[in-house]
Amino acid sequence: MRMYDIILKKRANVPLTDEEIRFVIDGYVKGDIPDYQVSALLMTIVFNGMSARELGTLTLAMAQSGHMVDLSSIDGITVDKHSTGGVGDKTTLIIGPLVAACGGKVAKMSGRGLGHTGGTIDKMESIPNLKVSLEQDDFINQVNRIGLAVIGQSEGLAPADKKLYALRDVTGTVDSIPLIASSVMSKKLASGAQAILLDVKVGSGAFMKTIDDARALAKAMVDIGTENGRSVKAVLTDMDRPLGHAIGNALEIREVIDTLKGRGPQDLTHECLIMAAHMLVLSHICDYETALSRVQDALDSGEALERLRLMIEAQGGNIHVINDESLLAIGKFTYDVTAPQDGYIIHMNTEQCGIASVMLGAGRTVKDGPIDYSAGIVMHKKTGDSVICGESVATLYTSDESLIPNAAKTYVEAITFGTTAPTVVDTILDIVE
Amino acid sequence: MRMYDIILKKRANVPLTDEEIRFVIDGYVKGDIPDYQVSALLMTIVFNGMSARELGTLTLAMAQSGHMVDLSSIDGITVDKHSTGGVGDKTTLIIGPLVAACGGKVAKMSGRGLGHTGGTIDKMESIPNLKVSLEQDDFINQVNRIGLAVIGQSEGLAPADKKLYALRDVTGTVDSIPLIASSVMSKKLASGAQAILLDVKVGSGAFMKTIDDARALAKAMVDIGTENGRSVKAVLTDMDRPLGHAIGNALEIREVIDTLKGRGPQDLTHECLIMAAHMLVLSHICDYETALSRVQDALDSGEALERLRLMIEAQGGNIHVINDESLLAIGKFTYDVTAPQDGYIIHMNTEQCGIASVMLGAGRTVKDGPIDYSAGIVMHKKTGDSVICGESVATLYTSDESLIPNAAKTYVEAITFGTTAPTVVDTILDIVE
Repeated sequence: MRMYDIILKKRANVPLTDEEIRFVIDGYVKGDIPDYQVSALLMTIVFNGMSARELGTLTLAMAQSGHMVDLSSIDGITVDKHSTGGVGDKTTLIIGPLVAACGGKVAKMSGRGLGHTGGTIDKMESIPNLKVSLEQDDFINQVNRIGLAVIGQSEGLAPADKKLYALRDVTGTVDSIPLIASSVMSKKLASGAQAILLDVKVGSGAFMKTIDDARALAKAMVDIGTENGRSVKAVLTDMDRPLGHAIGNALEIREVIDTLKGRGPQDLTHECLIMAAHMLVLSHICDYETALSRVQDALDSGEALERLRLMIEAQGGNIHVINDESLLAIGKFTYDVTAPQDGYIIHMNTEQCGIASVMLGAGRTVKDGPIDYSAGIVMHKKTGDSVICGESVATLYTSDESLIPNAAKTYVEAITFGTTAPTVVDTILDIVE
Repeated sequence: MRMYDIILKKRANVPLTDEEIRFVIDGYVKGDIPDYQVSALLMTIVFNGMSARELGTLTLAMAQSGHMVDLSSIDGITVDKHSTGGVGDKTTLIIGPLVAACGGKVAKMSGRGLGHTGGTIDKMESIPNLKVSLEQDDFINQVNRIGLAVIGQSEGLAPADKKLYALRDVTGTVDSIPLIASSVMSKKLASGAQAILLDVKVGSGAFMKTIDDARALAKAMVDIGTENGRSVKAVLTDMDRPLGHAIGNALEIREVIDTLKGRGPQDLTHECLIMAAHMLVLSHICDYETALSRVQDALDSGEALERLRLMIEAQGGNIHVINDESLLAIGKFTYDVTAPQDGYIIHMNTEQCGIASVMLGAGRTVKDGPIDYSAGIVMHKKTGDSVICGESVATLYTSDESLIPNAAKTYVEAITFGTTAPTVVDTILDIVE
């Protein structure tokens, strides 16, 4: 078998066999196949795409290039959730407790912030003393005991993806539905959960800017899971405005707690309840209608909040944050962005909103750089809301006052004001299964 | 300017600017741009093609990556000819003398055999003592004096092409019209001739198997020349059967001399006269009708043969080969391939015919390997000819008897016999200008 022939075959749009795909991944990880041949093959995939079978095989080979997490000692069906990345997206920390409270087994590995998007692990670390790294046995025992554990993704997961991603990043092959899908799903397959709910974000703050691209990505990821015997469903959610009111790590933890206390933003609460219900269905716990009512009950009764408390406790965090938000850092310097006119917010460039938060210190500007957990933005008005001239539409928080002017400028420029109310869509746009 | 952005732009099918193309070629030759980025870009070109402007700029940048031969001290318009490679193609050594005899200035650099195709330089070296390497001044003086010089292509010509070709060869990007066209034409632009006649071969013995591919390649190469101020025309010629009767170096030189004596094969003579006439037109010497009659006169009068003698003399070769063909090596072992039935030759797999000749020793099986100049094939019957069972259709020649069985088997398998006469096309299929 020769890499040269495999490139020519894919160039001619003939589907590759399982053996050929494994030959490529194994050879690349071992260093037997050079970068210049792999980048040529990746570009043929950009142009010719991949069948569901090819993609399933590719993704499994990528997953199997490293450690495959074994969750079989967890009782019941393990369920994971993955978001393609958004601004103000703190859903994992709301949905996880909701699902666990209803009997689901959430064994989740999460990532850190990337570019303008936040990461669950960074948010969790704004809770004093919380550990985001657990031994495998402790991780499994915690899920068996309280139904929920969220830890950082192991570095050793899917090394083929790491090597491929680094190559894609310099060869113009990042932006390709099959390559994005295989990258995401290789880590999900390696993480071991039997059921996976995918949250594919769409809009100005998402990697997928259009509903068609998002649907194609969702379909590719669902197919990969199905090809490999996992139960997968994708929810397409709106990221043409930030989710909830808070952007930034400790600010988002406050919003998580508020939401689990039943007083969170409507859009965030609604989205979390629906996604949690889908996860119960994927876990074969009940049908969708029953699931919806169960997660609502778990929210209303405080059982979901209790699961969050149990998780913080199990992972060594300060559980008093639940009732004393002052234990969570908050930027001592604030700045209010005001409406320049009477009317409405008619659009938010959500990526720019995320960048403004990063500029305040809430995200990294260099890899492994420091984060100001206290920094971020609390939005008082979002797309569709009416405003009065001079009214505050958002408060910026930071511990470094010098960062405010540029961040404020970026945030203001991200907001479009107008005189007619825009149509505001539901945050759940579609389901792909 | 970043290579990454250039890849993305070409991937999105947006034409690259002159500056971007030069940035790629300069950076690649210098080693600033890595193979893996260039292979990704090459694959985008395979899928998206290139505009005439892009291709013209690319090819000039490739030519200018090395020495540009200066032919300006040659009186008159210098004219070159290039064949895409065939079997039995000895036309350069007939056309060159014809054009020179009519006042053209043929300053030509030729190549060696490649795969199943022969090379003019190898054929010339079968003439005892002939030099195929001349100092630049001697080369120019010879063209000024006798109108003709044919030498080996300098190693330093278009180094960018050399580097790109080596990469294409391992990344599945050889077979691409714009990339083939730029590779050929970069060396032609660097060789310095003002006018270029391209002989694009079509059929089972050619790299272009179909007339449509050949026409597209011809068009791309003509456009490249035109973009760069050269007068270029392409003749599409049939390579679905070998050209003339002889395949193999010394055997082909005999056929060259026979043809210039007016007793060569009809197909070969016809093709050479037409191409020589086009070269006179490209040289602004006369119109096509006049040119046809002048080249016929040069053939009939022996003036063209005299030019060949002058060139052999000027390049130090033994001029007695002209009148004593025994001075040219001929394989001492022979084998006759016979017709297995009465009927016709209805097809010749011409690539296989060329491979049979290589197997007899007439071509290289490894780079820089030795050649048996005495080896080859003389065909007595070609496509369209009637045959009688047991009659010799070809004689194989070699100086190593052990090579005969496999070569004979390959040659026999290349010939298809049948009972109905096939339609035989003219050797000149089309003109692209």
